[in-house]
Amino acid sequence: MIFWKNFFQNSNINASSEKNFKKLIVLDKTCDKIEFKDIYLSSNKNINLYELEQLCDSVGWVKRPLKKVKIALKNSSIIISLIQKKDANSKLVGFARATSDNGFNATIWDVVIHPDFQGLGLGKVVIHQLIQQLRQAEISTITLFAEPDVVSFYKKLGFIKDPDGVKGMFWYPR
Amino acid sequence: MIFWKNFFQNSNINASSEKNFKKLIVLDKTCDKIEFKDIYLSSNKNINLYELEQLCDSVGWVKRPLKKVKIALKNSSIIISLIQKKDANSKLVGFARATSDNGFNATIWDVVIHPDFQGLGLGKVVIHQLIQQLRQAEISTITLFAEPDVVSFYKKLGFIKDPDGVKGMFWYPR
Repeated sequence: MIFWKNFFQNSNINASSEKNFKKLIVLDKTCDKIEFKDIYLSSNKNINLYELEQLCDSVGWVKRPLKKVKIALKNSSIIISLIQKKDANSKLVGFARATSDNGFNATIWDVVIHPDFQGLGLGKVVIHQLIQQLRQAEISTITLFAEPDVVSFYKKLGFIKDPDGVKGMFWYPR
Repeated sequence: MIFWKNFFQNSNINASSEKNFKKLIVLDKTCDKIEFKDIYLSSNKNINLYELEQLCDSVGWVKRPLKKVKIALKNSSIIISLIQKKDANSKLVGFARATSDNGFNATIWDVVIHPDFQGLGLGKVVIHQLIQQLRQAEISTITLFAEPDVVSFYKKLGFIKDPDGVKGMFWYPR
């Protein structure tokens, strides 16, 4: 696993600025700086719905109506995407979003990295960026619901499972 | 424990209507209809912040800056409150809210019933109403984080703890 660190190509770009992309530079274990496959980080909320659908397809998620996806994105407080730019082409390779009351609590949803880009630390970059932006907005409780196979991933990023016995609970329509 | 059922005094009131209050009528175990202490259910988002603070104080919650509470309420998708109206006076006796992307997911926060009104089924009324409104908005995943002492309460209302091993996780600032 590559030890990552993200830098911004242009450090005076405001983190909440919508239209700028920030080039990711990843450090390997020896901390030699390497540019990582021309991947850019963005917090632009204007996501191409078809590209997002393709990305979700690539990890086998159930298809969702695009109309509802559009509403869900519109009502997300923060959206983070990773875009590979190569020549004139760009490809959505990572995504995550958070809902929030913008006062106290936030919940992270839909964390996805394209299989071709997994195992390279990009999931950490996305979550790290979400946390950073939520902290800038003074959100004190950042929550998520983790499938069993990613619990240890989130633990390494500082998330605590069932703190003080608090349990995540779900209600589904019958 | 009283077996409850809520009726609306005026059944043609739209559930999402902001300015109407719906009178709660509670049935006891023998199903004799009794009017319950003149309590009204409301989904009006204009909550008196000081009354809410008083209600949260009554159950020993840590004080929160009203400015942030105001922002959090503004960014909540649904707010449910229970108001006791007696003569010319009214008192906030119950509260709950949910954040949502209005497409797929919602999270319930800040469920509180005044101690003088606990054990009468009003918590169920509030959660039932939240679920009803979220279902009307076609939200399929309703989530919450339950303290250990209320896990069984939510189970009785159909919430499932850690479904398929999915874990609630929290990140706090250090």
